[in-house]
Amino acid sequence: LSRAHIVSSYDADLARLVGTILEMGGLAQTAFAGALAALAKRDAEAAERVIDDDARLDDLEEQVDQSAVRLFALRQPMAGDLRLIAMSLKISNDLERIGDYAASIAKRAKRLTMDAPPQATASLERMGACLETMLTDVLDAYRERDARQAMSVWHRDHEVDDIYDSVFRELLGELKADPRATSAGIDLLFIAKNLERIGDHTTNIAERVHYVVHGDRINRMRHEPAPV
Amino acid sequence: LSRAHIVSSYDADLARLVGTILEMGGLAQTAFAGALAALAKRDAEAAERVIDDDARLDDLEEQVDQSAVRLFALRQPMAGDLRLIAMSLKISNDLERIGDYAASIAKRAKRLTMDAPPQATASLERMGACLETMLTDVLDAYRERDARQAMSVWHRDHEVDDIYDSVFRELLGELKADPRATSAGIDLLFIAKNLERIGDHTTNIAERVHYVVHGDRINRMRHEPAPV
Repeated sequence: LSRAHIVSSYDADLARLVGTILEMGGLAQTAFAGALAALAKRDAEAAERVIDDDARLDDLEEQVDQSAVRLFALRQPMAGDLRLIAMSLKISNDLERIGDYAASIAKRAKRLTMDAPPQATASLERMGACLETMLTDVLDAYRERDARQAMSVWHRDHEVDDIYDSVFRELLGELKADPRATSAGIDLLFIAKNLERIGDHTTNIAERVHYVVHGDRINRMRHEPAPV
Repeated sequence: LSRAHIVSSYDADLARLVGTILEMGGLAQTAFAGALAALAKRDAEAAERVIDDDARLDDLEEQVDQSAVRLFALRQPMAGDLRLIAMSLKISNDLERIGDYAASIAKRAKRLTMDAPPQATASLERMGACLETMLTDVLDAYRERDARQAMSVWHRDHEVDDIYDSVFRELLGELKADPRATSAGIDLLFIAKNLERIGDHTTNIAERVHYVVHGDRINRMRHEPAPV
């Protein structure tokens, strides 16, 4: 094999791995959008689709593992490429988890009726919209190996945490005031928690992109466990 | 450098990486035991320790990433070793998350009073005891590269899920019956959820050990999103 041939199939293997991550990213975005539609419009069909599609992300995570191991074994990647492949192993898990959380939101949204506390639902939708932008931006940052973009996503996670804190307090108040609303209130509390966790995984991806580019970690002060 | 020297420093680097994962495992076990003590005995000091120690797991996860990248770059590991290093990147994240969930349980346990629903607390302790054994066993499986042991842990996760389902229903019933118990009930619900997530991460580690040994995945049928 000529040197040029080896290099070009290396590039192709690497591009395939990145492509699989971006495919996972696209599926996670679709799942998340479906979960938010299920929440906002009580769209049971959208919810069903999210739940049904979740297995595909599991399969792709496995495919990323296999591709990464193959690249390490056959291609001896170095420096930035090496870090990209290593972090892709972790990012695939973050995206698979985001899909799982979207499916959990969809399941809970499906059984909410239109008269579930509407103010809390509006806050959750706002949290969701914020997260959708963050997820899009962090996938761009991954594709472009853009640490600055990753950093900007990472800083935005506090907005999500702030909405989470206020919606949690609000729902707790409603639960205490009206025990008939208990089931719906608890579904909304767990949806809030799922959204907050999606924010954590998006932030994780931002940290991993930063590591790919710079070889070190963002200051971990923000990495405390989520507020309880 | 002689060939023997290269091989022996390869072994030393690999042993160091495995050692860091096992150190993380030990810290996760300690954190989890502390969280369960905080829950069972309302031991606020144990809870504080768990919360304070959590940052150490973040640091060690970063150390695993650095060691793995170094091994890939300098040592060209193959086959089982290569898969072990690749999966260690993911397992370090599972262990860091288990530490986070233990800290969340500790925070919630700290504010529970002794008169929080005692029956539900007993079920949660049972769930915790089951998980402690699973975590010990899966760390053994990792250290020994024992796929059979990993498989046995993986099969036990349904016990955890069964307790989770029944304790969730029980708590929901109590919340509906007695709105004064709302705050404690919700803390217990989230503790149950945190325990269930610790079970998922333990199961993930089992799957990753299986992949290290055999190069393929356990049938993913069990890998659905958790029951909501």
